Formats: sequence, structure tokens, C-alpha cells
Amino acid sequence: MSTQVDMAATTSEHVEAQDLTVDVAQLGAQVLGQWAEIRSRARKLCEDPALWKIEGQPMAEHRERVLSQLGVLVDAGGVLLSFPESVGGKNNPGGNIANFEQLVLADPSLQIKSGVQWGLFGAAVTHLGTDKHHRKWLPGIMSLDIPGCFAMTETGHGSDVASIATTATYDQESGDFILHTPHRGAWKDYIGNAALHGKAAVVFAQLIVAGENHGVHALYVPLRDENGFLEGIGGEDDGPKGGLNGIDNGRLHFTNVRVPRENLLDRYGSVDEAGVYSSPIESRGRRFFTMLGTLVQGRVSLVGASVVASQLASTVAIRYGLVRRQFPIPGSDQEQVLMDYQTHQRRLVPHLANTYAMGFAQDEMLELFHDVFLGTKDSEEDRQDLETLAAALKPYATWSALDNLQAGREACGGQGFLSENRLASLRADLDVYATFEGDNTVLLQLVAKRLLGDYAKAFKAGGFGSMASYVADHVGEATINRSGLRRLAQRVADFGSTARSIGYVRSTASQRQLLTDRVETMVEALADELRPASKMEPGEAGALMNKHQSALIDAAWAHAELVVWEAFTRAVVAMPDNDTKQVMRWLRDLHGFMLIERHRDWYLMNGRLSVHRAEAITDYINNRLLPRLRPHLGDLVAGLGLSDAHVRAPIVLGEEHERQEQARAHEATLG
Amino acid sequence: MSTQVDMAATTSEHVEAQDLTVDVAQLGAQVLGQWAEIRSRARKLCEDPALWKIEGQPMAEHRERVLSQLGVLVDAGGVLLSFPESVGGKNNPGGNIANFEQLVLADPSLQIKSGVQWGLFGAAVTHLGTDKHHRKWLPGIMSLDIPGCFAMTETGHGSDVASIATTATYDQESGDFILHTPHRGAWKDYIGNAALHGKAAVVFAQLIVAGENHGVHALYVPLRDENGFLEGIGGEDDGPKGGLNGIDNGRLHFTNVRVPRENLLDRYGSVDEAGVYSSPIESRGRRFFTMLGTLVQGRVSLVGASVVASQLASTVAIRYGLVRRQFPIPGSDQEQVLMDYQTHQRRLVPHLANTYAMGFAQDEMLELFHDVFLGTKDSEEDRQDLETLAAALKPYATWSALDNLQAGREACGGQGFLSENRLASLRADLDVYATFEGDNTVLLQLVAKRLLGDYAKAFKAGGFGSMASYVADHVGEATINRSGLRRLAQRVADFGSTARSIGYVRSTASQRQLLTDRVETMVEALADELRPASKMEPGEAGALMNKHQSALIDAAWAHAELVVWEAFTRAVVAMPDNDTKQVMRWLRDLHGFMLIERHRDWYLMNGRLSVHRAEAITDYINNRLLPRLRPHLGDLVAGLGLSDAHVRAPIVLGEEHERQEQARAHEATLG
Repeated sequence: MSTQVDMAATTSEHVEAQDLTVDVAQLGAQVLGQWAEIRSRARKLCEDPALWKIEGQPMAEHRERVLSQLGVLVDAGGVLLSFPESVGGKNNPGGNIANFEQLVLADPSLQIKSGVQWGLFGAAVTHLGTDKHHRKWLPGIMSLDIPGCFAMTETGHGSDVASIATTATYDQESGDFILHTPHRGAWKDYIGNAALHGKAAVVFAQLIVAGENHGVHALYVPLRDENGFLEGIGGEDDGPKGGLNGIDNGRLHFTNVRVPRENLLDRYGSVDEAGVYSSPIESRGRRFFTMLGTLVQGRVSLVGASVVASQLASTVAIRYGLVRRQFPIPGSDQEQVLMDYQTHQRRLVPHLANTYAMGFAQDEMLELFHDVFLGTKDSEEDRQDLETLAAALKPYATWSALDNLQAGREACGGQGFLSENRLASLRADLDVYATFEGDNTVLLQLVAKRLLGDYAKAFKAGGFGSMASYVADHVGEATINRSGLRRLAQRVADFGSTARSIGYVRSTASQRQLLTDRVETMVEALADELRPASKMEPGEAGALMNKHQSALIDAAWAHAELVVWEAFTRAVVAMPDNDTKQVMRWLRDLHGFMLIERHRDWYLMNGRLSVHRAEAITDYINNRLLPRLRPHLGDLVAGLGLSDAHVRAPIVLGEEHERQEQARAHEATLG
Repeated sequence: MSTQVDMAATTSEHVEAQDLTVDVAQLGAQVLGQWAEIRSRARKLCEDPALWKIEGQPMAEHRERVLSQLGVLVDAGGVLLSFPESVGGKNNPGGNIANFEQLVLADPSLQIKSGVQWGLFGAAVTHLGTDKHHRKWLPGIMSLDIPGCFAMTETGHGSDVASIATTATYDQESGDFILHTPHRGAWKDYIGNAALHGKAAVVFAQLIVAGENHGVHALYVPLRDENGFLEGIGGEDDGPKGGLNGIDNGRLHFTNVRVPRENLLDRYGSVDEAGVYSSPIESRGRRFFTMLGTLVQGRVSLVGASVVASQLASTVAIRYGLVRRQFPIPGSDQEQVLMDYQTHQRRLVPHLANTYAMGFAQDEMLELFHDVFLGTKDSEEDRQDLETLAAALKPYATWSALDNLQAGREACGGQGFLSENRLASLRADLDVYATFEGDNTVLLQLVAKRLLGDYAKAFKAGGFGSMASYVADHVGEATINRSGLRRLAQRVADFGSTARSIGYVRSTASQRQLLTDRVETMVEALADELRPASKMEPGEAGALMNKHQSALIDAAWAHAELVVWEAFTRAVVAMPDNDTKQVMRWLRDLHGFMLIERHRDWYLMNGRLSVHRAEAITDYINNRLLPRLRPHLGDLVAGLGLSDAHVRAPIVLGEEHERQEQARAHEATLG
């Protein structure tokens, strides 16, 4: 606490923070990113009260409202973005996600129900089916004539899709597939549109042909007509949930349901008339992961949704903090504005920094996603990079959004708990983002495995242990290896004593070095610990892996932090050289310092930070960076670009300000 | 990660964990604590389906259901516990809270609505009123003939009660008080029972007599008759909230509403017929804090409610984790039980440890509460001790419960998001606990100020800076100074090198020393930093205080952690010398190690832990303590004593087990 901050630093430190002017329009344009026009149009659409969530609406009415709102989305045309041109779509995968992201501003139930219809059900037909399927079903899917389900998850198997137990057995005689649910654990579960509205479904099942199981495949299955479930099909309503109650999640089961052979979505595996199975991908494992690869779209979508929800959280909480007053200022007859309290700054401003950072990271990921899904980048490595990046950012963004919403809700006190002020309601709706479309903990393990794999590849020549000789030269560069192991930073022999002041940590190169070095060192240590596994029996190897499971997840998380920090840094570097850039540089510094403070124990234990510098970090955050950012918080929030019709929370739309004016006027009459 | 744990340790380490037998009944008795009979009766009551929350019930119906459930509580008689014998009550303040705590098992809305009626409204009449008020109103309050409100908070002033703007002006001529709301910010807000059911209210207002403001006082005010609001009274519904939607929170305002002089609750301030104000407490500040002191009951109640909610969270999440399987065990045809994953253990078991710890801390606090409210302990210091303890434990317990519920909800995946499995629903209901009855952040600042005050008192003789000469001799003792500054542990000159193994940290004395020393050192540093404030202008002093606000909160939190750890330790010490004690000792060690790991950066920066020991802590948690506790998790959860009718979550009542049996039977048929 007593650590003084070294004042002799770069020239930028001498600028008086309050004299700088933030260009809100410039920030706004950067936030809208590469799909600015599509994002603007989607935001405009979300200003329509017909699309807004009605807080407290009973579940049954909410479900019907959301279904009818989907029709508004069809009319608005954004739905077309993801579909092939052959059926009238616009084949703009990045634009499609950019559009989807924003819908959280209207109602997360509407967003996710649209994601079920077009992003999962429709996308499965698009990506797992072939042209005949597109022409037959996509028009009805796009127009909502066929509301549908994405029936993959089973009650017994969530994240472990390979183990689902539903079967689709080819019946040579009739030429049909017989879809069957063998037991209760194999019921499809949590399926959006299943409880009420789904007329069809893409159902994932083990494909069995002539007694041989070819693994998980997807079939198009009609579910309901005007009289309800078709023969052999049954289901249940999942009932009320912690949020997203505008979506009719439910369960489905199938008792020897016949669908024609043509209903197998056969891009990656088909059965011919003679009952012979074939696939363009020979390896069963690779085929499975290729089919599941289309799930990446859901993860990328959720990152975008989380970014926008986080923008809303920061906007509500900080705007209220800038007007709300509580407790008298000592020695004054005024009350203190909440945002002037140090704790209030610490609770909210780092989340604002992270919100900007995640937005920039998402825009970069979307570029890769767009290229991969358009096929302009379609190597195995590109796809794996995208999957790893999405597996890292999905946990990062969803958990960050929940943290920001919760911090905001608490910072707004009782007002934050009222549904009209959005925060508690949004948090409830977003809660499930942490576990659906790939449980966050499971995804982080995938990332860690990829990091270890990259590490092994990088050192195949020298073998494990040759780390010391490996010196990356990327420090200070603005390029990034977007996924997999971030290129390793140069080791500095005496990291802890090369500079005595906080000035060291303040430089971009040092922040990068600290963050990169941590990922690299964690991965190296894990590779070392897990090396014996290759010579063990599977059971023993599994136990060794489990012994390091927490460390694996920590390494993956550190990687995600680095990726997001890099995106923030690149965005700041790209800005014109003006006041706004200086303020955003401080915001990026705050973001970097918070990461280093959070992992301070690691930096100390690994000799990367001296005690002196480690102590100085908190003081620098609390008493230098936060006060510098304080005069610009209104502009920084405005830069996120949300209108009053997006925000809607009465506490930030003048209501609180007006109450204080009335109170002051009254006090004046008392003399 | 590579740190090996020293095996040469106390004899207890050599016991094979799986050979120990946990005595569930013994644990159960200890959990029920000093008010075992009352707690058992309340738990029994909560098994009545008529009291259960119906998930997804629309708000209007939920509110009516909860009102009618209050009648069941009246019939059950627990309501009488807190009230004076003069009106037929049982004058058992500790028992009253012990009873209240458990109601969260039925429905948190029911619990909090009962708290509004009897714990706030009724308690205000009891503690701020005098015998005439008791006889006139308490019978109707106890029987629910008078549903009522506790109208303290205003839209403009939440935590800062001293600044409320509602006035009660004595009208000499009529002998009435004129209650008046001067502007919108002075509307009473978030008031339970205000939107619909309240027939009367205790209203807090600035008491003005002959032009002089005597500060905040409370008056009994009739609100509604069968035709609705009485003349001059108006209000609004707060509408849907993030949770607790079975309670009709609302706003109230008063336009020159007259109430007779006798309606002033006059224990701490009265106005006689001649219009002369008098009070047994001369100091206006002390009078205010004495009146607000009754609020401590609400805080103690919320700690209890949070403990029980946390018991439920651990029970659901761990019981599901013990049966649910996912992903094949490498080299086996079985799937892995979730609870065998290291991350799953790390996510859930520390919360279980904390749940036990908080329960023991609450039982101790209840003893002090009981003595203070019975008057067997009624010194100023006792009251302040209680208030400080409640101000520390309320944030600790409410935030801990939310964390546990969230960890549990995520650990249960999609099932955790279904309302039927309780976790998401309970989390939503408990969310507001973090900011009502005293915002957690504000309360922690109160604690910090008390710690600083105690510190100043302790060193008045020697003056600040004499710390080095102060050596406490309480290490290793099981006594506790329950609130205020925990007696200071002996400083060890070279804390970092006295022992090289983890064995050092494992001893109770060392854990106590590490935790105590941290509080003490943080308070000492703060006292040092804030010393100049006493010579500053108020504005400057306020700014200095604000510069250290985060550090103040951190110190208060460290104090709360110490108090809870001490309670856990005392409970273990008190156990008979058997296997159960050994297992609970490991659970306490886990609790202590998690605290030390969490603040590892502080211990390293302050030279209290060597890098070697700091690194060993995580390994010891993950690969020693958690595996040792693993075989006992079922028993440890059973020891919390919740029945199936409390738990209710289908996923832990055999449903998942049965699904897996079916799946296995099916697989067997496949050969």
C-alpha cells in the first residue's frame, strides 16, 4: 500500500487526463468493426419495442411472443445472411454473426431462439446436408414455415457427443432409416423448439448400416403436423429455467421412427441405394470432429452476444454510477457521486476495459470465421485455429459477461435488482451461456490440449526440454498467431530486477512479455509433467492427466487472456494518433495491469516480478490509471454506441437525475 | 506444479482416507447446533409441499401464494419466538433466527416476506416501541391480522439512512405528527408488503419538533383499509425483480398524513403533550446508531439463510457429481463419475468446506446475538461486537452462498439451469442478499473502521508505530475475540524459512498465524497510511480515505475469513476424537489452504511464505486433500442433514441413477 509510483516515465504520463478529448464517434466506428453496416442495421432493428423482452411476462406468453418476433426477423432480412446463394441467401457468414450478436439487446430469448432456428437447425442442413437438402428445406427454414430443432444433446450425454445412444439403423428392405431411442438417458434434451414449436429436427444419431456403426451422423426428421407429434415421436417440456424462458426447450424421443434414406444429411457420410456406406473422410474420428466443427458457429455467436451484453452492462452500471450520489462528501454539503469512490471504479472500470478488449477480439475472430466458412481459408490448420480460438474465447467472453452483469447489478444496489433496469434479467438469461454450446470447462481443456500439441510440434526437432534454446522474436510485434500456442516471448534472464519502476510494466512490450511468458511457461511445465503419459497404460495416463486438470485449464485461460489483450493492443495501435488513442491506451494498460495483478502470485513464484514491482501494480491501478480514466468514463461508455432504446433502464434515462434536481430544489426552500 | 509434498508429517497423515468412517448423525447434530430442536422443527415444516416454491409461477399468483403461506407459519407457532412474553411471545431471539434460517428451504420469498412481517415490521414495533405499542399492535402483527411494512429505505437514500428526507413534524395544535414526502427521491422504495398487502407500516422519518430536527425516528402508520390506501398515502409497485417475486415490493409516499402522537415508537425518543422532545440517549449520533442497531437482526438472519442455501447448493451439486458420469475412463468401458475429475472437486469441495465453516460461525454469532437481545449481555461493547461481527459475516455469507450456488449450477450443466433442480432459482432469489439489509461493500467499510478503531485503542498507550513491541500470546488458543481486531499473532522473524515442508502450513497454529498476521499487518499498514487524516481538513481526509478504500475492504474481508476459519477450527476441536474428526480436520485444512492460496500473492510480497511453500499449497490441495476427502463426500453432504423433501431436485433423487441403470441394461443387450 505504501509503494510510491515512479513519476519519471514516458511523456504521455505528463498529460493531464482531464484535458484530453475523447472522440466518441471514432470509438463508435471502431466498436462496430468490420461489419459496421450490418451491426448498425441490427441495432436499429433492436430499437423496435415489438422485439423487446417484457419483464415478468409469464412463460407461456413469452414463448408465443418470441415465436412471433422471429417473423419480424424474417421480414428484416438478416436471416438470409448465412444461407447459400443457391436458395436466395447471401452467403455472408461473418455478417450473419455480426447481425446475430446484437439481438441480445432486444431479448436474449429471441436471440437464442433465432440461433436455434437458423444458426443450429438451418446451419446443420446447410453444412451437413448437400444441395438437394438445401433446395428442399432451406426455403422453409429461412421463412420460418418450418420451425425446427437441433437435436444433438441427450439427457445422458451433454458435452460427450460421441457417446450419444440414439440410433439410426438403415433398413435395407425399405430403404428407410429407423430412428430409435433405446432408453431414457438417450432422450434428446434441452432442445429449443422441441416443447412446442418445432415441426422438424436435425437429429444426431449413431448411424448403423448392415450391423456396422459408422458413428454420429445427422438426419432431417419431421416432428409434428397440425395434430401434434407424428407417430413414434414423443417428448416433454423442460419447464421453467433460470432464464431464456421465451424459448420452449424440451425433450424428444423416437420409437422406431422411419425416415427416407434421402433424409440423411450426407455431406460427410452417405448410404447408397444398395446400402453401402461411404464418406469423403476415411478416419472415423476426423469425420466426427469435422461434422462437429460446424458447432464453432454457435460458439463464435455466443462470444458476440456476450460482448454486446457486456456493453449493455457497462453502459447501465457506469451511467448510473456517474449520476447517482450517496453519502455526504466530508466537509461539503454535496453528496458523493458513486463513480468517485475508488471501489466503485475498481468494480466497474476494469469490466469496461475488458468489454472493449473482447469486442476487438471478436471482430478479429469473425474475420477468420468468415474466411474459413467462405472457404477462402480452408486448410485443416485454419479450421483448427478457428476452433481453438472459439474454444478459448467462448469461456472467456461468457464468464466475463456474467461477471460484468453481476458487478453492475450489485453496483446499482436495489435498482440493479429491479428487472426494469435490465442487469439482473440479462444475467439470468446469459447464465446458461457458460455451459451450453460446449461447457466452458470442457472447452478450456480442448484449448489446453491444442497448446500442448503445438508445443510438441514446435519442439519435435529438439525434443522436449529444448525450450531454453528456443527464443521467439515476436516481442513487440503486432502480428499474432491467432490460436494455438502464442509465439513464445524472449526469456529475460533476470526478469525481476531489470527495472525498478512501474514504468517497466507500463510498456506494451513488457505487458506482452509477461502475459506471453506465463502461457509459455505453464505449457512447458505441463508438457514436462505429462511427458511420461505417452509410455503409460491408458488408465494410468488418464490419471496423470487428471492430476493436472486444473493446471491445464489455467494454462488455457492464460492463453485466452493473452489473445484478448493482443486484440485490444492491435486496436489501440491502429487508432489515429490523438487524445482518444491516449485514453484508450490507458484503458488497455488498466486491462493489462488487472491481468498481471490477478496472477501476481504466479509472477512472484516464477521470479518474473520483484516484490517491489508487484506491490506497485495495485497502487498504479487504483491511484493512477483509474483516476486518469475517471473524467472520460461517460465518453468511453458512449463510445460503445448503445442508444436509449437499447439501454431502456429508467435509472440511466434521466430519472435519477431528475429526482436529484427535485431534492436540491426542495432543500433550497429549506434555506 | 512439480513441487513434491513432504511425506514426513503428523501421524494423522498416515491414515488411509478410505478406511475412515464418518459418523453422519454426529455431524448432523453439530450442524443443527445450539438450537437443534428449533432448527429440526423448522426443517420438518419445510417438508410440507404447501410451502414450496412453484417454479415458473407467474408473479401475481406467487405473491398470493406466499401471503397465504405466512398463515401456515402463524399456525406453526415459530412466529412467536421473537416476541415479548407480555404479548404471548417466547422471547427467544436466537431461536427465532434459527427458525427463520431454515425457511429458505421452502421458498426464499416466503422466508423474506416472513422476515419483513415479523423480523422487520414486528421487530421495529418491539424494539423501537414501548409496552403500550406492544399491547396495541403486536398481537395483530403476530397473527398476521396486520400485514405490515418496514419503510426505511428511500429511492434517493439506500445505505445512507441518516440522509432520508421524509419528515414527521409535530403539530402542537392537534397533537399529531404530520408525515410528509417532500419529493420523488424521498419515496419509500423496495418496501416488502408495500405494493399489495401492507395494512400498516413502521415509517422512518426526520423528527421535527418546534422547528428542530431530532434525526431519524420511527412511527407506526396505518396504510390501507379495505378500500385501499388511506388519504394522503400513495404508492407504486416495484414490478418484477431478479428474484423473490413472491414478495410485493413497492413504493410509498405520504402527503401531509396525520398520525397521533402516540404512534411515535418512543423507546429512544419521545414527545410529550406539551411538545417537548426527550431521549434517554443524549448524543444524536449515538441515538441514531442505537435505533439502527436493531437492524443487526436482519443481517444475522441473512447469514443464517445463506448458510442453509449453501447447504442446499452443496447437497445438490455434490450428490449429482457423485452419480453423474461423462466421458469414458481411458482404458475402461466405464464412464467417469464427475466427482472424480480434479476440476470438479476443486469447484465444489471448497464450497462444502466453507458451508460447514459458515454454519459453525453463524451458530456462534447467534449465541452472542441471543445474549445481547435478551439483555444478558448488554454493554455498549457487546452490542458493537455483535454489529461488527454481523457486518463482517453478512457480506461473507451472502457472497459465499451466491458463489456456491453458481458453482453448483454450472457443475450440473444443463440440468443446473432447469428450475426444477433448484440451483438457478435459488441463486436468483438470493442475489439481492448482497445489497439489501446493508450493502456488502458498505458493511465491510464499517468493519474496517472498527478494526482501525480497535487498533488505535490497543496502541493508545504506545502510540502508533509501537506495533513491533506488541506480541500477542493467543496463538494456539481456541478462544476468540469474536469481533473487532482478532488478537495479534506472534511475529516470526523469518516466516519464510522456518520450515521447508508443507507440514508447516498444515498445523492449526500455522494456519491461524498466517490468517491472523495478514489481518493485523493490513490494519497496521492502513493505520499508518491514514494517520495524517486526523490533522487534515475533512475534504482532504475524505480523499485520503477514498484512496485506501479498496485496501480497507480487503482488510475487513480478511477479518471475516479469519473469524469463519476460527469457528470451523473450534468446532473441529470440540468433536470427539474419532474418524469423523479426522475427516473434518482435513476439510478444515482444505478451507484454510484455500484461503492461503487465494492470498498467496500477499504472503509472498510480505515474506510470510517462501516460494517453495507457496507452490506446494496448490499441489497439496489438489493431490492430497481433495483425494482424501473424495471417499467421504457423500457422508459429508449427508451430514448437512437435508432430506429429499428439502432437496427436491430430481437429478439427485434417483432419476439420474435410474437412467444410467437403464443405459447399462440396454448396453448389455448389445453384447
